[in-house]
Amino acid sequence: MARVLTGIQSSGRPHLGNILGAIVPAIELIKQNKEESFIFIADLHSLTSSKNGELRKENTLAVAAAWLAFGLDIDKTVFYRQSRRPEVAELTWYLSCFTPFPMLANAHSFKDKSERLADVNAGLFTYPVLMASDILLYSADLVPVGKDQMQHLEMTRDIASTFNRIMEEEILTIPEARIDEVVKTIPGTDGQKMSKSYNNYIDIFLPEKQLKKNVNSIITDSTPLEEPKDPDTCNVYKLYSLIATEEQTQEMRGKYQGGNYGYGHAKKEFMELILDKYSKERELFNYYMEHPEEVEKKLSAGEEKAKSVGEPILEKIRTKLGFR
Amino acid sequence: MARVLTGIQSSGRPHLGNILGAIVPAIELIKQNKEESFIFIADLHSLTSSKNGELRKENTLAVAAAWLAFGLDIDKTVFYRQSRRPEVAELTWYLSCFTPFPMLANAHSFKDKSERLADVNAGLFTYPVLMASDILLYSADLVPVGKDQMQHLEMTRDIASTFNRIMEEEILTIPEARIDEVVKTIPGTDGQKMSKSYNNYIDIFLPEKQLKKNVNSIITDSTPLEEPKDPDTCNVYKLYSLIATEEQTQEMRGKYQGGNYGYGHAKKEFMELILDKYSKERELFNYYMEHPEEVEKKLSAGEEKAKSVGEPILEKIRTKLGFR
Repeated sequence: MARVLTGIQSSGRPHLGNILGAIVPAIELIKQNKEESFIFIADLHSLTSSKNGELRKENTLAVAAAWLAFGLDIDKTVFYRQSRRPEVAELTWYLSCFTPFPMLANAHSFKDKSERLADVNAGLFTYPVLMASDILLYSADLVPVGKDQMQHLEMTRDIASTFNRIMEEEILTIPEARIDEVVKTIPGTDGQKMSKSYNNYIDIFLPEKQLKKNVNSIITDSTPLEEPKDPDTCNVYKLYSLIATEEQTQEMRGKYQGGNYGYGHAKKEFMELILDKYSKERELFNYYMEHPEEVEKKLSAGEEKAKSVGEPILEKIRTKLGFR
Repeated sequence: MARVLTGIQSSGRPHLGNILGAIVPAIELIKQNKEESFIFIADLHSLTSSKNGELRKENTLAVAAAWLAFGLDIDKTVFYRQSRRPEVAELTWYLSCFTPFPMLANAHSFKDKSERLADVNAGLFTYPVLMASDILLYSADLVPVGKDQMQHLEMTRDIASTFNRIMEEEILTIPEARIDEVVKTIPGTDGQKMSKSYNNYIDIFLPEKQLKKNVNSIITDSTPLEEPKDPDTCNVYKLYSLIATEEQTQEMRGKYQGGNYGYGHAKKEFMELILDKYSKERELFNYYMEHPEEVEKKLSAGEEKAKSVGEPILEKIRTKLGFR
């Protein structure tokens, strides 16, 4: 295939929505890809919204632990923390001098955020340049993006083209977007899209007791126990069917329609399925959380690999710009 | 005194205006200062306006050669290229997340430039954050600034205070401005302020023949040779008096007022004074231009010193922000 690069948010430990919507498909894509893939934890980016250092450190560990727990193959991946490759900040400065100011000022995402957020900082504004730098530093060919990130990827392409045109050499690789048209929308405990900000997520890594509480928080209607129920409008059923086999799903469907089957029963089955299906991942996650030094070792190795790819590209850019 | 830090432009070899207005006073200040001073060539900054790499490299060498030729004491100075300390770009990202967007949008200098220039890039916009990073990375106490840079220094102070307040620790040193109220305005060959952009400068490092042409380009009026002349309205006299002794100046004044003394004579005397007064500097400048490896060695040593000061400060910031 080509060199695939994906940045992952470091805003906390991944919930079921992140796992099914991002981690599992990415790990699948990496497996199929013959070339090494680049997966980085976008902790520099997180500084635009959170200034809490302790929390950032903890979140970064949790994100890494979750990806490792789900079997990210680090022999086939360059897995690293964005902040540990200072080259990316250096390149951001260079690229910012090739980025038209009005292009950033007109970005949808900035306009939207500057209306919503209290802290409208310059990092929020220049973030698309940092993203361009993340991609261009490693000559990535393919960047999986959601529709909301398409404009940022277009900017990356624009910045790279402008750079190449002005410097009269094809130094930067123009990346392609890979748009996942059929991204599954994972519903949360209230039926809206599962999201940290809506606080409607299922955290499969919780200890059993807390997990039970988490699953019990799924909102259901008040159909009495004995009556038949409509699986297609039920949040428990929807969530269950996302991780169950076809057979398990059909079985639960029958129970819903048959009556004498309560939401409590369904929640219990969902909970048991999580514990069963993700037993290995839960164990690994806990292991890594308790052994941060092992995560550190894996990430450090990835950071060395990232450096060996990025440094020669950056050196070419520096030389071309007259800094070497 | 305190830790003084000054950034110097890398837009070409310094002309007489730069020498008398910046280099000589700075070298004097450094001599008086008991602490080590920081003097850096702002080559990263130059990327906001020029994309020519060859030229940037040449200009950087010429600027370094001129400072060395004028006797910059590198044992008492940390003399370095901004681009060789990547820490500054890293810190720029951190600080940009503590810089309110509206503060940058309202900067006079950006407003002015965005109206004047064709290439209004994001680097031009975020430049005050880079400047803050230049200063804060080395915990500078005192920054000599012209009046036009006062607002940028205020921004540096604001960014540092905001950072310290949010992070609840006095990590960054709030720098003081040192405003040179009595900066001499050095007139150019046409009587306007001497400036590269007006193309009215005297380049004292030129070979004799070209220097003669340069000096002859000074604009004078058409008073006939035999008539007395007014020294106070003459560009040649003004320039001469800037570098001549009091005695020499009085002597030329007498000749102007006595008549039978032409502008050609005055130009010749000015030219001879340059050759005489700056003979050592001209020689040294040429020497360094022909031995870039020696300049490289001196700058590299400065860059190592800069690293040893900046790195521990940056490490503290990284840790506080949760990146270590």
